[in-house]
Amino acid sequence: MLARVLGAAAGGGFPQWNCGCSNCRGVREGTIHARPRTQAALAVSADGRSWFLFGASPDVRTQIEGFPALHPRGARHTPIAGIVLAHGDLDQCLGLLQLREAQPLTVYATATVRRSFCEGNALYQTLARFPGQVTWRELVPDRPVALSDAAGRESGLVLEAVPVPGKPPLHRRGATPETGDTVGLLVRETAHHRTLAYLPSVAGPTPELESLLTQTDALFFDGTFWSGDELVRLDPAGPGGRPATEMAHWPLSGENGSLALLARLPVRRRILIHINNTNPILREDSPEHRLVEAAGVEVAWDGMEVFL
Amino acid sequence: MLARVLGAAAGGGFPQWNCGCSNCRGVREGTIHARPRTQAALAVSADGRSWFLFGASPDVRTQIEGFPALHPRGARHTPIAGIVLAHGDLDQCLGLLQLREAQPLTVYATATVRRSFCEGNALYQTLARFPGQVTWRELVPDRPVALSDAAGRESGLVLEAVPVPGKPPLHRRGATPETGDTVGLLVRETAHHRTLAYLPSVAGPTPELESLLTQTDALFFDGTFWSGDELVRLDPAGPGGRPATEMAHWPLSGENGSLALLARLPVRRRILIHINNTNPILREDSPEHRLVEAAGVEVAWDGMEVFL
Repeated sequence: MLARVLGAAAGGGFPQWNCGCSNCRGVREGTIHARPRTQAALAVSADGRSWFLFGASPDVRTQIEGFPALHPRGARHTPIAGIVLAHGDLDQCLGLLQLREAQPLTVYATATVRRSFCEGNALYQTLARFPGQVTWRELVPDRPVALSDAAGRESGLVLEAVPVPGKPPLHRRGATPETGDTVGLLVRETAHHRTLAYLPSVAGPTPELESLLTQTDALFFDGTFWSGDELVRLDPAGPGGRPATEMAHWPLSGENGSLALLARLPVRRRILIHINNTNPILREDSPEHRLVEAAGVEVAWDGMEVFL
Repeated sequence: MLARVLGAAAGGGFPQWNCGCSNCRGVREGTIHARPRTQAALAVSADGRSWFLFGASPDVRTQIEGFPALHPRGARHTPIAGIVLAHGDLDQCLGLLQLREAQPLTVYATATVRRSFCEGNALYQTLARFPGQVTWRELVPDRPVALSDAAGRESGLVLEAVPVPGKPPLHRRGATPETGDTVGLLVRETAHHRTLAYLPSVAGPTPELESLLTQTDALFFDGTFWSGDELVRLDPAGPGGRPATEMAHWPLSGENGSLALLARLPVRRRILIHINNTNPILREDSPEHRLVEAAGVEVAWDGMEVFL
């Protein structure tokens, strides 16, 4: 199984269009040790021919062009056999509306995520122009499904959705939280018994999380914020200055931070993804980046590949 | 007045993610004389400090990062004073949903275009998180408005919307066509009496079009298709194989094509924009490109600048 990081940043990307924080300014001017990153997405394949996108980010067009394995092999064609959604936020789903050039798509999502994107969404009509333009396959928590392409050929990958703490997406705020709002995704390659986990959004710990992650060979985990008040300090009076908890992202640092959990997992590759532009771990020479490395944890970057 | 082409391609961009036509394949492999292009948008300014985007394309994030004049000059800031929409298709509007990082926006559009994007669009709630997140300023055909920034400072630019033949956007197909569905945009710099026209989507000629365009110093015009059956020939049996007329784009070639009109206009800069990936004028050594040049007409590219 091969997983390629198409984008490693949180919503807004790095740099973020309206942000002049020291990270964003520094990466634009080339004065800090950091690389630009597009919004979080992964491409996964068992055979290198048929690919599954984990996340349809707003940067999907440049992400596809930047990875030749995803280029068409015919006049109208795509090697993308399916798209898997972990939650309903726009940085996870908006790219679907960019894949509207009369190409049949297969999308895997929980019923909740599907509804939060499609219901009352007039723009979605652009993906409903002919019968079969989008085939939705429902992810039911803890019920594994074999990933297959549009022709029904199995990919050698089995997918399982595991509910994790989250919240309804920003555009549905006020909606009653449901179990399927946010899931972690486990992909198993059946031939070689390898398991990869993708959890770009986790609001906090659960009793099951540690034992679940222990069973994987590699995992991509929510690395949005270093500390809970990162955005508040940047924009104390502004509408964007919200604490991490309110945004349903578990901060990395501190005794009860996610890094402490990741550090003790007996998993070969533990990789942070969905990293916010304000996070100090983006600077490769920062003390925080060093703490991550010392914990045996990696920081994802666009183009990073993990072979299992 | 300065106009910078942020993107010169039609919806889908060039290359298009699922297209393996000779143009798309050639530009990916570097075997043809052509440059990649992002989806159509223009940045316009009278003073170089305050900018207006004509079109919020799905590529808006990379377009902003690619042009330093649009970078923030503070912790949370944007030099983008307003966004102007010519029609309601997603390649013109979807970028609005990418500018959702708690930044107040001012959008200029006809009532029809505003409705076609906002009504029944649950995703739009992401831009309605605090009072004043988006201020809509209505464009009424033939009634010029002074463009100003959020603080009400005038920009030195006056904008006029002129109805042109068009159709409701793809996601509202079946809707009754209205006058404000598609407009041409005229921008006048009052200090130097210069006029620029932006018409990325024009379905065909009208009696007024020629005299209107004659009054401009530079114009960007719909260069989507060379011929009416370009997509039909590429994908004869597929759902994407539609004639240009059905997509409300006036083809360039032929006796009644738009190039014949543009060729006879006494306007210094006549520039084609919104160019589809299948259009042979994208190849700089094609006979069609030479015909365009011989007509005194230019083909826009990402990064092209026009000073008036």
